[in-house]
Formats: sequence, C-alpha cells, structure tokens
Amino acid sequence: MSVSQRPRVGHIQFLNCLPIYWGLVRSGALLDVELTKDTPDRLNDMLVAGELDIGPISLVEYLRNADDLLLLPDLAVGSDGPVLSVNLVSQLPLVALDERRVALGSTSRTSVLLARMWLAEVYGVTPDYFECPPDLTTMLLEADAAVLIGDTALRATYDAPRRGLDVYDLGQVWHDWTGLPMVFAVWAVRRGYADANPGLVKDVHNAFVRSRDEALAHVDEVAEQAARWEVFDAATLATYFRTLDFSLGPRQLEGLVEFGRRAAVVGAVPATVMPAFAAV
Amino acid sequence: MSVSQRPRVGHIQFLNCLPIYWGLVRSGALLDVELTKDTPDRLNDMLVAGELDIGPISLVEYLRNADDLLLLPDLAVGSDGPVLSVNLVSQLPLVALDERRVALGSTSRTSVLLARMWLAEVYGVTPDYFECPPDLTTMLLEADAAVLIGDTALRATYDAPRRGLDVYDLGQVWHDWTGLPMVFAVWAVRRGYADANPGLVKDVHNAFVRSRDEALAHVDEVAEQAARWEVFDAATLATYFRTLDFSLGPRQLEGLVEFGRRAAVVGAVPATVMPAFAAV
Repeated sequence: MSVSQRPRVGHIQFLNCLPIYWGLVRSGALLDVELTKDTPDRLNDMLVAGELDIGPISLVEYLRNADDLLLLPDLAVGSDGPVLSVNLVSQLPLVALDERRVALGSTSRTSVLLARMWLAEVYGVTPDYFECPPDLTTMLLEADAAVLIGDTALRATYDAPRRGLDVYDLGQVWHDWTGLPMVFAVWAVRRGYADANPGLVKDVHNAFVRSRDEALAHVDEVAEQAARWEVFDAATLATYFRTLDFSLGPRQLEGLVEFGRRAAVVGAVPATVMPAFAAV
Repeated sequence: MSVSQRPRVGHIQFLNCLPIYWGLVRSGALLDVELTKDTPDRLNDMLVAGELDIGPISLVEYLRNADDLLLLPDLAVGSDGPVLSVNLVSQLPLVALDERRVALGSTSRTSVLLARMWLAEVYGVTPDYFECPPDLTTMLLEADAAVLIGDTALRATYDAPRRGLDVYDLGQVWHDWTGLPMVFAVWAVRRGYADANPGLVKDVHNAFVRSRDEALAHVDEVAEQAARWEVFDAATLATYFRTLDFSLGPRQLEGLVEFGRRAAVVGAVPATVMPAFAAV
C-alpha cells in the first residue's frame, strides 16, 4: 500500500477516548493510518468536509449528515445510565431557568441539544441560551446554568455538589427520560470512501475494536497510566472508563434512533434517520 | 450609535484573562461592544482575517501580521519571571531530548516557539516536534516532553514535580535567558478600523484597562469567585493573578521586541518588528 492510500482517520485526543486509543499505540496499528488527533468539534467538521475518511462524529452531526456517512458497527461513546462527564450544572432549580441565561459549551453538539430538549419537554422552560468556550468559572459568571463535557464536567461531577451547584448527569437524564442508553458519538466512514476501499475500512474498524477490547481488558492499567498526570486518581479513572459505554449494540442503536426521532421533532435534524452501516 | 457600528471585540475566555474580563462585567462595559469569547487560537485567526476589529493576539501572530495591526498600549498577558501556566514538562533531562518526540499544544503559538528556540540555542537539541491537542496524559503517552499552556499547565506546575516530571516555567526560562519580561499575548486593533474609528478604539481600550485595574484592585475577590468551580483554591488563584503581568510598559516592550528579533533570526517571523501603537 502506498503512503497516499493510507486511510485518513480521526481520533478524539481526550481522556474519554483514551481506552480506544491505548490499544492502538500498544498494537502498533497506528502505523497503518494517517491519524489526525483533535477535538471532537474539529473532527466533526473534517469528516463532514471530506478531509477525513473515517472518524468519530458527534451523534447530532452524524444525524445531519447521514446521507454521506456509514456507521462503523459496535463502536461508540455513550452510557447506559450515568456518563459522569456530560453535565448540566445549575445554580438554580431547573424550573426557575425559564428566560434565564444558560451557557452551552462550544465543544459540544449532542449534549447541548439533549439538555435543551430535556429542559423544554420535561421542565417546560426555555432559557436564553448562548454558546461559549467550556470554562465553568467564566460560564457561571454570566449564566445561571451551563452544559459541560469532558474533563471539566468530570471534575464538576465530583466537586460541584459540595460547592452548592446542582449537577445533572445527561447520560442518566436520558436513561431516566427514555429508558434507553445514550450515544454521544459514533464512528463513521464517508460512503464514497467505503465503496472504494472496503478492505481498508474493515482493517481500520478491526484495529479500533481490538484496541478498545484490549484496553477494557486492562482498565486498571490504562487508568493508572492516565492518573499519572491528571487530577483524578487511578480508581476514579478506572470507574470512569468502566462507566463509559464504547459499544454500539441493538439497545444503543435504539437509543440513537430515538434521539434522532426526538431531534427531528424539534427541527434540530432534517428527519428521523435509519442508520446505515459499512460492511465490515 | 447603531448596533452595526459596535466594535467587534475578542476576549480570551479562560482563567488567565479573567481579571481583564471581571471588571467589564462589573462595570457593564460589555454592553457597548460585540464581544466574541473564544480560545486564543481562534481569536488570533479571527482578528487576522478581519472578523474582529480589536482583540487579544498571540505575540508571534502579532509579529507575523504587524503590517495590518496596531497595538493597544499598556495591555498584555505576560510575566516578569515565572508565569505558572506556560510550561515545558519533560520526562527526560533536556539535553537528552535531541531527536526525541516532543508534543506541542495546538492552542499555543508563542510559547511553543519560545520552547523550540530555547531548546535549540541553550541546550543544542532538536527534538522531533509534533502538534496535538493540549491533553497532558495523551501527550506524554507518545512523547518525552510537552509544551502546555493554561489550566492544564497550571496544574502541572503544582502536581507534576512530585510525580516525577521536570517542569520548566517558560516565563522564568525567558527571564533567565534574556533578563527581560516575557509577553505572551498583546491586544491589537486592525489599522483600517483604527483609522476610521479612533474614538471607539479609545473607548474599548479604556474599558479593558479600567477592567484590568479594577480586578487587580480586588484580586482576592476575583480569586474567591473563580475558586468556587475550579480545582485551585482561592489563595493559589490570587497568587496566579498577581503573578501574571497584564501591563505593556517599556520593559515589556523591550521583551517583545527582543522576542521578535530572535524569532526573525530563526525565520519564524518575517523580520524584526518595531511595534506601532494605536493613538488612544
């Protein structure tokens, strides 16, 4: 295979995707792909623009671009219950948020839509939403509540309650609301690329699934390695990695389709999507 | 003044610029501008592209685009000695980094150039640099050292030494190397905008300087407010805010010009820049 044919693959370079990445480093599977490591929002844009062939994509962006994309089976970032790192934090009771300012983290797509739908339909409130960088302190200087993802949100899960903030875990929120798992991100391949390169797509998919399985078989080791430089200790990180659901089975798919249905009802995505998978 | 004439102003929505922002909220000066709060790298791009009229810009990006920009006097983010939140962290002695992999945080411009120049000229090493998102754990999985800015770097200052990492404060590095203060970011206005709207530029500059002065007069209060949701306690944050140098006086300007001279020598910026200021 010549260098120019290597698949252009995206990877989320953050703690929540470390288990998917860890095995790739260990197995050397990185050598076979041109890997772009970046933030979720930039990887979304690159995959949609065709600058990547394969990569993770926020659920809502997948739903908006499903005509151009095929899902990779059995790979996702989600949770069946609490997710720990996707939160709505509020200084007020939720019913009091109507017409109050709520800050939406600019690196998040799916979770801000979930929060908006949930507040509207369950609590009947329509806050004055605004987007801003995901920094809790500056968000709460100007807003009564904020939607957060990632490490900042994980810290809030552990620290914010004792500091007087209400923390709503949006994985748990979705589970309680619908009885289904939540899928925050999926892996997808561009249809044209999949048609032209079925073997490469299969190879990349295999590498990611094997990497994920390898890491989950050694969660304590991954957590210990990660805890060296993080504020979280190894036990907290092991719990976090075990809480995240990196699979995309029938129930996760049901959650995905249900989210798409509700998002279509509120006009956030064009229509209910019936997911199509790449043949691997 | 009609809405369309409001100056388009950028602001770095992170902890290190909270003191500059805090007074704006308090004084209500926010009402008079169209404020875009974003990460430093995006604000750089927007100011250079003319999507903002006035805003903070990394020193190196200012040096590269000085023909189109005028500096605002007496406003910067820098340090005269340690800065606490701009670090090179290393798992190896610096002299051993030659040809080893060093990760450069993708949200940083000036500090990665400073680190590269310093390693080359003082230690004679040329590592294999690569850019990636600023996540210390994933950086150090693949690299022997990393250049970090912001909250992650501030945490590393306090945590990393006892975990076996060497932490080099790049503000201190510059000070020891040159005897001068380091300027990491300046505030600038596009020349065309300044020519057409001298009064507005003066108003915006006054608002930022007054905000900064107001916050510095109440550092403990700002720190206490910030510490509510951060991992750092109020005393640590107060120290941090007092350590940062938000001024741009003659010595800071000397540091700026000296950085530009050295950057021009290594070809990182087109030529030594003699800064031009907006009349305020």
